[in-house]
Amino acid sequence: MPGFVVWFTGLSGAGKSTLSALLANELRARGVHVEVLDGDEVRTHLSKGLGFSKEDRDINIRRIGFVAKLLARAGACAVTAAISPYKDVRNEQRAQIPHFIEVFCQCPVDALASRDPKGLYKRALAGEIAHFTGITDPYEPPDNPEVTLYTDRETQAESLTKIIAALEQRNLIPVR
Amino acid sequence: MPGFVVWFTGLSGAGKSTLSALLANELRARGVHVEVLDGDEVRTHLSKGLGFSKEDRDINIRRIGFVAKLLARAGACAVTAAISPYKDVRNEQRAQIPHFIEVFCQCPVDALASRDPKGLYKRALAGEIAHFTGITDPYEPPDNPEVTLYTDRETQAESLTKIIAALEQRNLIPVR
Repeated sequence: MPGFVVWFTGLSGAGKSTLSALLANELRARGVHVEVLDGDEVRTHLSKGLGFSKEDRDINIRRIGFVAKLLARAGACAVTAAISPYKDVRNEQRAQIPHFIEVFCQCPVDALASRDPKGLYKRALAGEIAHFTGITDPYEPPDNPEVTLYTDRETQAESLTKIIAALEQRNLIPVR
Repeated sequence: MPGFVVWFTGLSGAGKSTLSALLANELRARGVHVEVLDGDEVRTHLSKGLGFSKEDRDINIRRIGFVAKLLARAGACAVTAAISPYKDVRNEQRAQIPHFIEVFCQCPVDALASRDPKGLYKRALAGEIAHFTGITDPYEPPDNPEVTLYTDRETQAESLTKIIAALEQRNLIPVR
C-alpha cells in the first residue's frame, strides 16, 4: 500500500491534535508506520524563529509538507496537525503529494470560545493575542476536503470512524 | 532490515554530493528506499533564511537530523550531504539516530584548492567569502567515523565500495 498524508486543518482547539493522536493509534494497530507532525512539535524542530505572519505561516506549512511528502514516499503515513489557515498553501501541498487526505475540523468560533480550556479565545477576543486564527487572523476553509468533521457535535469516535472510512475506501490502509 | 542514516561530512568539494548520489543509485538498485538530503536542497526547503554562523549551521544540521531520523524510523535510508563542520552537533544526531553511519570525506585543503571547479577556494583564500569552512571557518573532523574516504587519492568506485561494505557488515542492506 502506498504511503499517504493525512492533513488536518482547522482552528485552534477544533480537535486536530487529539484526533491525530487517536488516528495514529488506530493506524499503528493496523500495522501502518505513522509519524505525527504536530504544529507545536514542528515549530520546535523545523521552524523555530518563525512567527505568525502569513509569510512565516506559509514557510512553516511548506516545511511540514516537504517532510510529510518524504515520509509518504518512504511508504509511511504522515499526519500533520497544524492550523494551516491558508487555502493556497494547503493546495500547493496537495499538488505535490500523491495521496493527500485533507481533514477539515470544522467547529464554530462560538463553540471554541465557550470551551476554551487554555483561555486562548478569551485572550484573543480581548485583543491580547495578535495573529490569532479565526479572531484576528483569517482562516480559509477548504472547498473540497476529503473528510469534514463537525467536532462540536460529533464524538471523537464518530470523527475517527469517518477518517478511517475515507482511508479504507481509497485502499490506503488494510480494512479491518 | 532497519532504516538507517548515512551522514556525510567534509569540506566543500570533498565529494559528499557526488558520492551520495552514487550511493543512492547503488542502494536503489538493491531495493532500498533512499532520500538524499543534500546541503543545498535542505537550505531551500527547511532552512531558508539561515546563514553560516555556528548557531545557524547548528540549527540547519538539527533540522536535517530531525528529518533523517523520521525517514530512518519509517524504514528508509536517509543520506545527508551537508558540510556539518561541528563535531558536537554531529554527535548529537548520532545519539538520537539508532543506525548512524558517519562517512568522513577527507581531502586536504590544498587538493581542494587546486581542483576548485567553482572557484570557491580561490575566492575564500582571497578573503572574499566569510564563513568558508576550512579557510575562514572551522572544520572539526570526526574522531571515529564508521567510514573514512580519502577522496584525493581514491577513485569514486573505491570510495563507494567502502561505504557499501560498511553497510553490509552491519546488516543494513542486502549483500549482493
